[in-house]
Amino acid sequence: MAENGSVEEFLAVAVEAAKKAGEVIRKGFYQTKHVEHKGLVDLVTETDKACEDLIFDYLKQHFPDHKFIGEETTAACGITELTDEPTWIIDPLDGTTNFVHGFPFVCVSIGLTISKNPTVGVVYNPIMDELFTGVHGKGAFLNGNPIKVSSQSELLKSLLATEAGTKRDKATLDASTNRINSLLFKVRSLRMSGSCALNLCGVASGRLDLFYELGFGGPWDVAGGAVIVKEAGGLLFDPSGKDFDITAQRVAASNPLLKDAFIEALRQSE
Amino acid sequence: MAENGSVEEFLAVAVEAAKKAGEVIRKGFYQTKHVEHKGLVDLVTETDKACEDLIFDYLKQHFPDHKFIGEETTAACGITELTDEPTWIIDPLDGTTNFVHGFPFVCVSIGLTISKNPTVGVVYNPIMDELFTGVHGKGAFLNGNPIKVSSQSELLKSLLATEAGTKRDKATLDASTNRINSLLFKVRSLRMSGSCALNLCGVASGRLDLFYELGFGGPWDVAGGAVIVKEAGGLLFDPSGKDFDITAQRVAASNPLLKDAFIEALRQSE
Repeated sequence: MAENGSVEEFLAVAVEAAKKAGEVIRKGFYQTKHVEHKGLVDLVTETDKACEDLIFDYLKQHFPDHKFIGEETTAACGITELTDEPTWIIDPLDGTTNFVHGFPFVCVSIGLTISKNPTVGVVYNPIMDELFTGVHGKGAFLNGNPIKVSSQSELLKSLLATEAGTKRDKATLDASTNRINSLLFKVRSLRMSGSCALNLCGVASGRLDLFYELGFGGPWDVAGGAVIVKEAGGLLFDPSGKDFDITAQRVAASNPLLKDAFIEALRQSE
Repeated sequence: MAENGSVEEFLAVAVEAAKKAGEVIRKGFYQTKHVEHKGLVDLVTETDKACEDLIFDYLKQHFPDHKFIGEETTAACGITELTDEPTWIIDPLDGTTNFVHGFPFVCVSIGLTISKNPTVGVVYNPIMDELFTGVHGKGAFLNGNPIKVSSQSELLKSLLATEAGTKRDKATLDASTNRINSLLFKVRSLRMSGSCALNLCGVASGRLDLFYELGFGGPWDVAGGAVIVKEAGGLLFDPSGKDFDITAQRVAASNPLLKDAFIEALRQSE
C-alpha cells in the first residue's frame, strides 16, 4: 500500500479518479450528446461537468487539505491563483471537440503541483484505453510500461504536432498558418489530434518528436502531461525558448536533441 | 459460405488478407524499424513490402484472373492502367510516416473495382483494431456494426481533416497553407492524422464531417475508402466540385448536406 501523503498515494488516487471519469467519458462518447457552447468552437459537454465533479469529489475525499484548479470551475468562478500548496490541476475532458464528433483523441488530465512544480501527472484516454502516468523522479509509463522520448536528432526527420486552436480572428489565424507554413519546410510532417494533453504524451512516448501550442485554455491542459514529458526524458519550454511557465498558455516540448533546432525554427516562423 | 465469385466472397477474402497483413503491421509497429527512403518524406518500410506481397499472394491464390495494382509494385514497375476487369487496388500500409514514428493511425487499404467502379472496400487499422468494410449496395460497417456519415449541416460546426502531404516545394506548400488558412475561418477545427484511407473512414463513420486531400500517392489511397464512404451515405467528389476520379490523386468527401458549402469554401480557398 502507498503511504498516506506520499507521491505514490497521490498517483494511485489520481489514477482511480481518472479511470472513474474515463468510464463516464467512454459511455458518453458513443451516445448522442447534448452540447453547450462557450464561444463558437469551445464546446463543453455535460460529461465534462460530470467528470470534473467526480474527480474533484474523489480527490477532496482523500486530500481535503489540498487546493484544486479545474477548467469548469475556473470558467464558472474565475481563475484560482496557483500557490505553493499541493494543488490538483484538472482537465476533466481534454479534446471536447473530438468528444462531440466521436474522434478518438479524448482524455482526462490530472496534474499535482507542489511548490508550483508539476509532481504527479495522469493522462487517460478511455477510448484507446491508454493510461499515461508520471511522478517526479520516478519515470513515466504507458499502461505500466516505461516510456521515453524519441532519439531523433534531425528536425527534417521529425514529426511535429500542433493545433489550430479555438481563436478565429484574422491576426491569430494568419500568424498560426504562417507559422505552420514556415515549419513544414523544416520537419517531416504535421499532426493535429485535437488534445494538448495527448500531444504531450505523444512526445513523451516518442510517437511525436515535436509539439507546440499557443493560446490554449489554461494550466489544466499541461499540468498532467508536463510531468510525463519530463519523466520520459523530454523537455518543456516556452516556444520562444524561455522557461516553461505552467500558467502562460504557451508550451513547446521535444527530446533534448531537438530542442535548440526546434526553438530556432519556431523563432524563424514568427 | 459466400458463393464463389460473389462480392461476399471478394469481401471475405479481402478481410482475411487485411487481417493477415495487419498482424505483420502490428508486430512491426512496436519494434525498431529499418526504414528505407523514397524521397525525403515518403517512407517505405520492410513491413510495407512484406504486406503487399502477402496481400497480393493471398488474393491471387483466390482470384487468379483478377488484375492487381499496388503502391509498392507501381513504385517498382510503373503504373498499371485501370481497366474494366475486376482489379484489386492495394495500399499495404497507409500512414507509413505514422508507422515509422509509432503514431497509431496506420492501416491496410484494399479496394476492388469492377468496370472501374469501386465495389468492395476494406480498411483495417491493426493498432486500434478497427475494421472498416463496405460493399456496393450493401452498406458500410465498423467491426461489423453499421456506420453512417454525420448529420451535420453547418460548415461552421464541422470538423475538417486534411494532410500536409509530402511535397515541400514552396508553391505547393504555400498553396496548401493558404487553403488551410481560408478554411479555418469557416469550419470548427482541423485534424491531420496522416492516413488518407482512415480520413475517408472518419467521414464514413461521422467522426469527421469533411475531408480533402490533393496530391496523394495514387488510387490505392482511396480505392478502399471510396466504397466505405458511399455506402455510409457520404459523397466523394473532386475538390473542384467535379466528379471523383479514382486516378486523379485528388479527393474530397462529406455528407450530402455539406457538399455544396464545402465545395464553395474549397473554391474560395484557391
